[in-house]
Amino acid sequence: MRIVILVFVTFFFGQLKAQPAIKIFENYLSAHGPQIVSDYVTLLSIPNVANDLVNINRNADYLVNQLNQRGVETQLLTIDGVPPIVYGYLPGKNAKRTIALYVHYDGQPVDKTRWAHDPWDPKLYDKAMVDGGQPIPFPVSGTLIDPENRIYARSTGDDKAPIISILAALDAIKEQGLTLTSNFVFFFEGQEEAGSPQLRTYLEKYSTLLDQVDLWMFCDGPVHQSRRPQLVFGVRGVTGFEVTVYGSNRSLHSGHYGNWAPVPGQMISTLIASMKDANGNVIIKGFYDDVAPLSTYEIEAMANIPQIDVELRRELGLNDTEGTESLYERLLYPSLTIKGLSSGNVGAQAANVIPDIATAAIGVRLVKGNDPEKMVDLVERHIESQGYHIVRNDPDQATRLAYPKIAKITREEGYPAARTSMTNPFAQQVVARVKDVAGQDLILLPTLGGSLPLYLFTDVLKKPAIVVPIANHDNNQHAANENIRIENLWYGVKLMGAIMTMNP
Amino acid sequence: MRIVILVFVTFFFGQLKAQPAIKIFENYLSAHGPQIVSDYVTLLSIPNVANDLVNINRNADYLVNQLNQRGVETQLLTIDGVPPIVYGYLPGKNAKRTIALYVHYDGQPVDKTRWAHDPWDPKLYDKAMVDGGQPIPFPVSGTLIDPENRIYARSTGDDKAPIISILAALDAIKEQGLTLTSNFVFFFEGQEEAGSPQLRTYLEKYSTLLDQVDLWMFCDGPVHQSRRPQLVFGVRGVTGFEVTVYGSNRSLHSGHYGNWAPVPGQMISTLIASMKDANGNVIIKGFYDDVAPLSTYEIEAMANIPQIDVELRRELGLNDTEGTESLYERLLYPSLTIKGLSSGNVGAQAANVIPDIATAAIGVRLVKGNDPEKMVDLVERHIESQGYHIVRNDPDQATRLAYPKIAKITREEGYPAARTSMTNPFAQQVVARVKDVAGQDLILLPTLGGSLPLYLFTDVLKKPAIVVPIANHDNNQHAANENIRIENLWYGVKLMGAIMTMNP
Repeated sequence: MRIVILVFVTFFFGQLKAQPAIKIFENYLSAHGPQIVSDYVTLLSIPNVANDLVNINRNADYLVNQLNQRGVETQLLTIDGVPPIVYGYLPGKNAKRTIALYVHYDGQPVDKTRWAHDPWDPKLYDKAMVDGGQPIPFPVSGTLIDPENRIYARSTGDDKAPIISILAALDAIKEQGLTLTSNFVFFFEGQEEAGSPQLRTYLEKYSTLLDQVDLWMFCDGPVHQSRRPQLVFGVRGVTGFEVTVYGSNRSLHSGHYGNWAPVPGQMISTLIASMKDANGNVIIKGFYDDVAPLSTYEIEAMANIPQIDVELRRELGLNDTEGTESLYERLLYPSLTIKGLSSGNVGAQAANVIPDIATAAIGVRLVKGNDPEKMVDLVERHIESQGYHIVRNDPDQATRLAYPKIAKITREEGYPAARTSMTNPFAQQVVARVKDVAGQDLILLPTLGGSLPLYLFTDVLKKPAIVVPIANHDNNQHAANENIRIENLWYGVKLMGAIMTMNP
Repeated sequence: MRIVILVFVTFFFGQLKAQPAIKIFENYLSAHGPQIVSDYVTLLSIPNVANDLVNINRNADYLVNQLNQRGVETQLLTIDGVPPIVYGYLPGKNAKRTIALYVHYDGQPVDKTRWAHDPWDPKLYDKAMVDGGQPIPFPVSGTLIDPENRIYARSTGDDKAPIISILAALDAIKEQGLTLTSNFVFFFEGQEEAGSPQLRTYLEKYSTLLDQVDLWMFCDGPVHQSRRPQLVFGVRGVTGFEVTVYGSNRSLHSGHYGNWAPVPGQMISTLIASMKDANGNVIIKGFYDDVAPLSTYEIEAMANIPQIDVELRRELGLNDTEGTESLYERLLYPSLTIKGLSSGNVGAQAANVIPDIATAAIGVRLVKGNDPEKMVDLVERHIESQGYHIVRNDPDQATRLAYPKIAKITREEGYPAARTSMTNPFAQQVVARVKDVAGQDLILLPTLGGSLPLYLFTDVLKKPAIVVPIANHDNNQHAANENIRIENLWYGVKLMGAIMTMNP
C-alpha cells in the first residue's frame, strides 16, 4: 500500500509541476468577468492623486484588505507624510525563486473640465469614445462581456489594471486549486506619478524585505500600438522643470502700455522657439552628446518590432511628426516637451491685459547615458545664452530693475533611464511563459518611451527588472478620458495567472 | 420800483452766470465724503461682466433709479439679449448747448484666483496694496477720508468712478443751489469691455435722442502716470483674435510619444516668436504701413507732455521695454500683445502629457489709419507664410491628415482709432473750465493708448468727442485688484461739478 501511495504522490506532484494551460484562466474569466469588473470599479472609485494623502491612504487600506483576503501577508511600508507602499508576501510551494511585482496605485492629476465624466466615477462604454462609443450599463453576473468594451476612469490603464489582474489571478488559482510556483513579493507604490521622490528611501529602509527578490517585474505602461503584447527591458528616464519669465510687476492694460511694456507671452514663446529647430530636433548645446549606443542584440530586437508610424499618424490625425525617423528610433533619444504653457487667460476669460508673467512646464525624457541634473543644466545654460538671468524664486524689485530678462527655474525631481539584458535567465523564463499567453505576437522591446524608476532596481539594487505592460496603447494615459479595453484587462489576468504558475 | 426790481433781477442773473468756485465742491466733499464712498460701494457690489445679463440688468435698474432720484428723465435703451444703455436727460437753465456724458458700467471679466478678495465685495485700504496698504474700515459719517486711501473692487477705476462722480455732483449742485448751465445727456453703456458690438446699432436706433448733442465727453481711462489730470482728444482702436494650433487629436503620454509627436506648445511658441523682432517691433509684413502721421499741432502738444519712462520703469520693475522710443511715441503705433497663452497645465496641475492643442489670445491696438479687419488679415497672411493652413472651426480628421500645420483663427469684433481736433470751440470751453479744477497741471494728449468706441461719434455721428479720465493710472484696470484712489474720486466729483456749472 505504501508503494502505491508513493506512486500516487509522485504522480500528483508531477501534475502540480506541469504549468496549467492558459485555457484555465480563460474559463475563469468567462465565468467571473462581471465580478472582476465590479471589483475594479470599486478600486477605481477611490481618488488617487499622490498629493491627496487622505484618499491615497484609502487606496492603500483597501489594497491591504484585498491582499489579506487572499492569504497574502501584508504590511504598509511608511514614511511620514508621503503615500505608503503596500507590501505583500506570498510564498510559493517549495519555490526556489522570488518574483516581485511592482505596480503603482496613484494616478496623474486630472483636469476635470476635459473629462466626459468624473474621473473617479467609472463608466463602461461599448467601445472607445473616439470611435463613437456610448455608455452602457455594467454587466450583471453570468453574462459575457464584449472584449472591445472599455472602462473609463483615472488609472484604468495607468496603473490599477495590474492590481486587479493580480487579485483576480490569485482568486483563479485558489478556485482551480493551482500551485503557486514562485514566492511573490507585491510592491504597490503610491507616488509614481509624482516622480517617486521617496522610492529610494523606501528601498533602503525596507531592504531586508526585498533582498531575496530574483527578478522585478514592473507592471506598468501600455502594450504595443499594434495591440500586440510586449515585454520591455528598459525605460527612458525623466526630469523636467518650470520656467517663468517676467514682465511688469503687475498685469497692465494692453491699450495704455501695449507696444512699450514687455510681453511675457512673447518672451516665453521666443525662448521656447529657440530650443528646437524646424524639424523638432533640440538645438540646445550638448543635448544629444551623452546618448549611449545600443548593443548588437538590442539593434537586432529593434529590427523585429513592427513599424507603426503610418498607422499611428492616421489614428492620431497627424500629417507629420517631429524629426524624420520612426517613432522607435526617436524614442532612443532624449526629448524636450512643452507640457504646459500659461500666461493670462484665453477664451471667455481672456482680458485686454499684458500679463505680468508667463510660465512653461517643460518635460525632458532621458535615455541611457543621460544624467538628469546635467540635462537640465544644459537647458539652463541655453536659457542664459538667450540673455536671461536665472533665479530660483520670484525676483524682488531690485532684481527686476537689474536685469532685462529674468527666468525663474524650478526643477522637478528626476531619475535616469535603465536597461536590463534580454539574456538574463529569470527574464528568459518569463519570456517563455508569456509566450503561452501571447504566442509569437510577443514583442521584445529594448526600451519603452515612458519612464519608471527602474534604475533603482537595476543600478542601485543590482537586480534584473523587466516591464510587463497590460493596458491598451490608446488608454489616454496621463490625459483626460483614460480607459482600459476589457480585452487588455483579460490579458492582464491571464498574464498574472501564467506567471504565478510557470514552471519552477 | 420796476427799475429797482430789474436791477435786482439782472444782478441775480449775473450771479447765476458766474461759475461757482471749485471750493464749493471741495467743501461738499469734506462734508459728504463717507456717504459718497458708501453709495459707491453699493454700486460696486453689483457684478458687471457684460455677458452676465442678470447682473448687468441689476446695474442698469440701479442706475435708472439713482438718476430718477436726482430729477433726471431716464429711459433704458434696449436691444434684445444685450446689456441695455441707461439714458438720461437733464435740461439746463436756458442752456444753449448739450453735453453728453458717456460712461460704461460693465467691467472686465475677472480671474478671482488672482484677487486679494472677491472683486465685487469692495474693500477700503489705507494705501495701495503694492505699497503695503492694509484693509481699513469704511469711514463713518462726519469723518475726513485720507485721499491716499483706495477702494478695491472690479470697475472702481474702469469705469464706475465717473458714474458716482456724476451722481455726487448733481447732489452738490442741488444742495448748494447752483445752476446747471448746459443740457446734459447721460449715456451709460453696459457692453464696452466686450468690445461694444451693439453700440452702433444703439446709436442708429435712438439717434433722435442724440441729435442735439454738441459735445461728447467720454468719461473713461486713467489720468496721466505723473498723477496730473489730462484731457484726451483721441484713442487707439482695438481688435484681436485667438489662434489655436493642433498636435495629435488627443493628448499623448510625453514618454511614449515625446520626441516624435508634434508639440502644440512648441508650435505656437515658434509662431508667436516669428511675429516680433528682438526689440519688440512687429515684423509682420505691412503692419506699420497705414499709420497716419500727426499734425503739427499734435506734435507740439506731444512735446509738452512730461516724459515718464524712467519713473514708470522703476514703478513697474522694468529694466527694459519694447523698442527704443518713449511710451508716448510707442503709443502712436499699432501694438500686438499676447494677452493669453494656454496649452495643457502648469504648476500643480501639470501632467506628463503632450497636449493636443495650444491657444493664444492676441490683442491688436490700432492707430489712426489702421483698418481693424485689414490688420488681422495681415496677421493671417503672416501665419500662412509660416506654413499654416488656416481654418475657422476645429479641423476634422481629413483636414488634420491633409496639412502638417493647422491654425484656427477666431476674430474679435474690433473698431478703429479716432481723434478730435484740439481747437474745437466746445472742447476749448471744457479745457478752460477743467483748468479751474486741475490748474496748469492739465495735460492735453492727442491720443490715449487705450481704446474706446469714439469713432462712432467722431466718424459716424460727426460730433466732437473728448476723453475725460478720472481714475489713477495705477488702478490695475482690466487686471486683478483694480482700485480707485480717493483723491481721484474727489477729482471726478469736482470735475463733473465744474463741467455742469461752467459758463454758458
